[in-house]
Amino acid sequence: MQRVGDVDLNLSEYVETERERIVASLFEWLRIPSISAHPDRADDVHRSAEFTAQLMRDAGLEHVEILETPGAPSVYGDWLHAGSDAPTALVYGHHDVQPVDPLDQWTSPPFEPVIVDGECRARGAIDDKGQVLYEIEAVRGLLQRDNKLPVNLKFLVEGEEEVGSPHFEDLLWREAERLACDVVVVSDTGMWSRTVPSICVGMRGLVAFDVTVRTGAIDLHSGSFGGAAPNPAHLIGRLVADLHDAEGRVTLPGFYDDVRPLTDAEQASLDLLPFDEAKWKRSACVQRIEGEQGRSVLERTWTRPTCDVVGINVGYTGDGIKTIVPAEGNVKITFRLVADQHPAKVTEAFEAWLAARIPDGVDVTVRPEGPGVAPALTPVDHPAVQALRRAIARVWDKDPLFTREGGSGPEEALGRVFAAPVLFLGVGLPGDRFHAPNERMVMDQFWKGLLAAGELWTELARG
Amino acid sequence: MQRVGDVDLNLSEYVETERERIVASLFEWLRIPSISAHPDRADDVHRSAEFTAQLMRDAGLEHVEILETPGAPSVYGDWLHAGSDAPTALVYGHHDVQPVDPLDQWTSPPFEPVIVDGECRARGAIDDKGQVLYEIEAVRGLLQRDNKLPVNLKFLVEGEEEVGSPHFEDLLWREAERLACDVVVVSDTGMWSRTVPSICVGMRGLVAFDVTVRTGAIDLHSGSFGGAAPNPAHLIGRLVADLHDAEGRVTLPGFYDDVRPLTDAEQASLDLLPFDEAKWKRSACVQRIEGEQGRSVLERTWTRPTCDVVGINVGYTGDGIKTIVPAEGNVKITFRLVADQHPAKVTEAFEAWLAARIPDGVDVTVRPEGPGVAPALTPVDHPAVQALRRAIARVWDKDPLFTREGGSGPEEALGRVFAAPVLFLGVGLPGDRFHAPNERMVMDQFWKGLLAAGELWTELARG
Repeated sequence: MQRVGDVDLNLSEYVETERERIVASLFEWLRIPSISAHPDRADDVHRSAEFTAQLMRDAGLEHVEILETPGAPSVYGDWLHAGSDAPTALVYGHHDVQPVDPLDQWTSPPFEPVIVDGECRARGAIDDKGQVLYEIEAVRGLLQRDNKLPVNLKFLVEGEEEVGSPHFEDLLWREAERLACDVVVVSDTGMWSRTVPSICVGMRGLVAFDVTVRTGAIDLHSGSFGGAAPNPAHLIGRLVADLHDAEGRVTLPGFYDDVRPLTDAEQASLDLLPFDEAKWKRSACVQRIEGEQGRSVLERTWTRPTCDVVGINVGYTGDGIKTIVPAEGNVKITFRLVADQHPAKVTEAFEAWLAARIPDGVDVTVRPEGPGVAPALTPVDHPAVQALRRAIARVWDKDPLFTREGGSGPEEALGRVFAAPVLFLGVGLPGDRFHAPNERMVMDQFWKGLLAAGELWTELARG
Repeated sequence: MQRVGDVDLNLSEYVETERERIVASLFEWLRIPSISAHPDRADDVHRSAEFTAQLMRDAGLEHVEILETPGAPSVYGDWLHAGSDAPTALVYGHHDVQPVDPLDQWTSPPFEPVIVDGECRARGAIDDKGQVLYEIEAVRGLLQRDNKLPVNLKFLVEGEEEVGSPHFEDLLWREAERLACDVVVVSDTGMWSRTVPSICVGMRGLVAFDVTVRTGAIDLHSGSFGGAAPNPAHLIGRLVADLHDAEGRVTLPGFYDDVRPLTDAEQASLDLLPFDEAKWKRSACVQRIEGEQGRSVLERTWTRPTCDVVGINVGYTGDGIKTIVPAEGNVKITFRLVADQHPAKVTEAFEAWLAARIPDGVDVTVRPEGPGVAPALTPVDHPAVQALRRAIARVWDKDPLFTREGGSGPEEALGRVFAAPVLFLGVGLPGDRFHAPNERMVMDQFWKGLLAAGELWTELARG
């Protein structure tokens, strides 16, 4: 895959001629402090939605509309004239931003964007206004050049992604007909590095359980009863210890049975990623690596199912010591799932595993947190993934590698509600300080993102 | 050991002639709501101290004095004319009482004593005014009859036992000279049952540790990092699980090495106690019994050292689930010790055991709670124990059995500060509802306690 020069890219000329206007537009948007977590910024979030709508209209998108929710509004726009044979893509991003605390750690004010050393510094630069803007500008550029797009396009730009998308799935179901699509393109993520472009193809699923263990009616005096009274802390300790074997594998019977092995291509792509263990430890602020033996860190966090206890609360937890045998304890246990594990099946396995470990005379309540989230995995040889691969390869002049995400975000709902593959076109870099002071976007990545979006629609139309 | 009739007991006649006055005196004391836990009852606690002092003076005790502390006052009195060859005994009890909530569960008002079905019902009846009163009245009876006592006697009646004796040990050290004694007699406990008189000869000791485990600087996203990041909940789970083996034995190396085996006499006495497992479960409000296999419940709670985790606190413990890999956790671990285990030695063993289980790159802070409490055990063949045994046998007309306490109270400090054996003369019964609504004292036990106190001094003088 060779890049023959900028002139071969659909939007090279557009970028050259429109560069200054686009940066001015980016700056104007970044100046709106659309912090969805702060109720007193609700007006700013609305202002940001209006700005998004205007960007869409200016680009030539139609049916532009602010979609109100019980929280902050999303913005919709579309262009649907590519014909019924052409695929329909839904582009997802968000216009709200994270809070800016601690403010004193910013080297320039978070809502006064500047470009320094080729980086745009501002809250929202990479997460996610910059990434939504290059998608909208790509549409504008293509329509300006060709008066048409190779695919039918819909945009959905959310307003409360940074507070956990509380009304997003409701909105998807409510607007399911209008939003229907063949492929989802999420523009809110990153790639491995500036020189190692990458495409995320999978997300882990999740099941979570809140387990309460009661061994007695009241806390007992450990002098009088200790040694004969059952202790829920001991039982919970054994349960937690039993979740993993000595090799760090999860002990639920059949837990790994449905795990789809990596294909040779997937494994090869994973092995090509220049993973740096010391750097990973620094980013996690930990001094050691644990987990399933015989697996790399990337496998452990992306392609393997795992179990993490996220909280334990038993007995006396204040200052000092209280000499009791506690009566009750709680442990919260989560499992990350990978294709083709099923949340319901893992739930069943966990409940059986647990029941086998609860002795007579102990009351246990297991509360699953909702139905769980299924893992998502788009095969790397899926035509849509291959289209994105060609687009990225052409712009970055390098074949992208395939990565995964260890968790799942609102993207999971998009793929599920529309039964469509989810593509991630994201130009963020590990040093972009998502959610942190001095958030930045590397401008070179921004222009490449714009060019890649322009290529992607052509490639998707080719199928 | 045969009782030949009441006339053989030192104080039989005194009890017969003084019965009504003594009950009136008990009622008057019980009407004082000397609740040490309630600051607004401080005046009542003082009034109770004054009443105690007056009881002592009326009995013929000398040097009666209210000993102020930063909290509630103790009361001292003595009679020291038995000669330097006679032993000196220190009688311990307390004049403060527990709170009375929930008030609506009392069948009669807690500070309006009544005698119903041979039981005196009131807060403080058995814990501990009734038990202090029979000790003081025994002195009064003996002095009335003989104008002298067979031993030198000192009384120390505390005013804040029910709030954990926060100033008691300071007081003991401050008044060590005045309180010096050859034997301590604690009158604040119970016996096995009305028909199975018993003597407590041992208390378990205690060491307690607050252990904090830190695996990282910040809570991590369990999607991004779960499976490779170290999880303190998992480590704490393994630690807790590792504290006991499959037979319920504590796994610290050498933990049982210093445990003094029961003598045949001790074992035989223990085996004679009519233990009822179903009743024990009901009293503990539990449905199962755990602990060291091959040991009875009484051994597990009295004569065997044990380990109880009293609290665990890791990660997210609020409602629902937070998908984190926590950075830190805390576990509080206690060990009950028996003779001849040493708190310092067990502390050392625990710290080594723990260090061996902490992987590189994990920060652990172990905070022992003070220096620990040593176990106490008076051999059943100790002359003072045998004196008490004879006294009880004579009054109850039955040889007492030997019991132990699973925990330790302020009595432990008494034995330690004065390097003296601690005898427990207590007439409480399992149904006396210590600390609960409808506290009672069985009057027959009260009179027997008075008689037994009268016998004890004679027996102690015999050596």
